Amino acid sequence: MKRLFLTITTVAGLAAALPAAAQFQKPEDAIKYRQGAFTVMAAHFGRVGAMANGRVPFDAKVAQDNMAVVMAVHKLPMAAFGEGTDKGAPQRAKPEVWKDGAKFKAAGEKMVAEMAKLDAAVKGGNLDAIKAAFGPAGGSCKACHDDFRAEKYSTN
Amino acid sequence: MKRLFLTITTVAGLAAALPAAAQFQKPEDAIKYRQGAFTVMAAHFGRVGAMANGRVPFDAKVAQDNMAVVMAVHKLPMAAFGEGTDKGAPQRAKPEVWKDGAKFKAAGEKMVAEMAKLDAAVKGGNLDAIKAAFGPAGGSCKACHDDFRAEKYSTN
Repeated sequence: MKRLFLTITTVAGLAAALPAAAQFQKPEDAIKYRQGAFTVMAAHFGRVGAMANGRVPFDAKVAQDNMAVVMAVHKLPMAAFGEGTDKGAPQRAKPEVWKDGAKFKAAGEKMVAEMAKLDAAVKGGNLDAIKAAFGPAGGSCKACHDDFRAEKYSTN
Repeated sequence: MKRLFLTITTVAGLAAALPAAAQFQKPEDAIKYRQGAFTVMAAHFGRVGAMANGRVPFDAKVAQDNMAVVMAVHKLPMAAFGEGTDKGAPQRAKPEVWKDGAKFKAAGEKMVAEMAKLDAAVKGGNLDAIKAAFGPAGGSCKACHDDFRAEKYSTN
C-alpha cells in the first residue's frame, strides 16, 4: 500500500493541493472514487453546457452553482490513478494512462486550465463569454477521453 | 421524464440550493450520480475522521481541504432520489427511501446540520472541537445507512 501511495503522489501532480488526498485502502476504492468524481463533474458540467448551447434558458445563478461543483471536484480524479489501479474494479481507463503518464498528466492539466477559464466566464455572468469558454473546456474532456478512455468497461 | 423531475423537486427539499440540479436523462444517471457523490463525500469525510480519531497526524489545512470537498458535495445526492430511481442500475437504496420519504428527508437534513457543525469546527482549527463534532456527523451517516441502505447491491 505504501508503494501505491508513493506512486500516486509522484504521478499525479494535480493532487498537490490536497496532499492527503491519495489515501486509498485498495485499488477498487481509488477506481470508484475517480469514477464518482468524474460522474458528478460531468453532470454539473453538462448543466452549464445546456445553457451554453441554448438547450435551457440561461440563469447566471444556476450556472454559477453548477460550476462551483465542477470546480470543487475536477482536480480530484487525477489523485486516484496511481500505479496498481489499472485493475480492481470494472473501469474504462486505458493502459495508456499508466504507459504514458506524462501525456495523461498534461491532458489533465489542460482540462484544469480550461475549467478555470470557464469558471471565470461563468462568474462574470456573460453568456457569450460562457459560450466561448465552454467549447474548449468540453474539448479538453473529449481529447482526454479519446486517448485514455475505452469504449467499454473492463471486466475486473 | 417530466414526472421524474417534478417528483425529485418535491421530495428532495435539500436540492433547493440547486434548482436545476434534478436533471437526469434516465434513472441510471441519477443512481450513478448519487453513488458518485456519496463515494467522494465518504472518502474526504474519512480523511477528516482519520485525524479526528488520531490515525493520522492532525493538519488543519489538510482537514480544511478535505472538509471543503465534503461541503461541496454533501447536499447533492438527495436531489437524485426521485421517484422511479429505485431501479435502473445496481444500488443499495432500500425501498424505504421512497416508502417513507419524510423520514428519509429528515435523515438527510440531520446529516446536513451535523456536517455544518463539523465544518465550523474544522474551519476553527481546534482538534478537540473537531473530535466533538465528528462523532455526531458520522452518526448521522450511520443512522441513515441503517434505515435506508441495504447490505447488498440490487441486481437491476
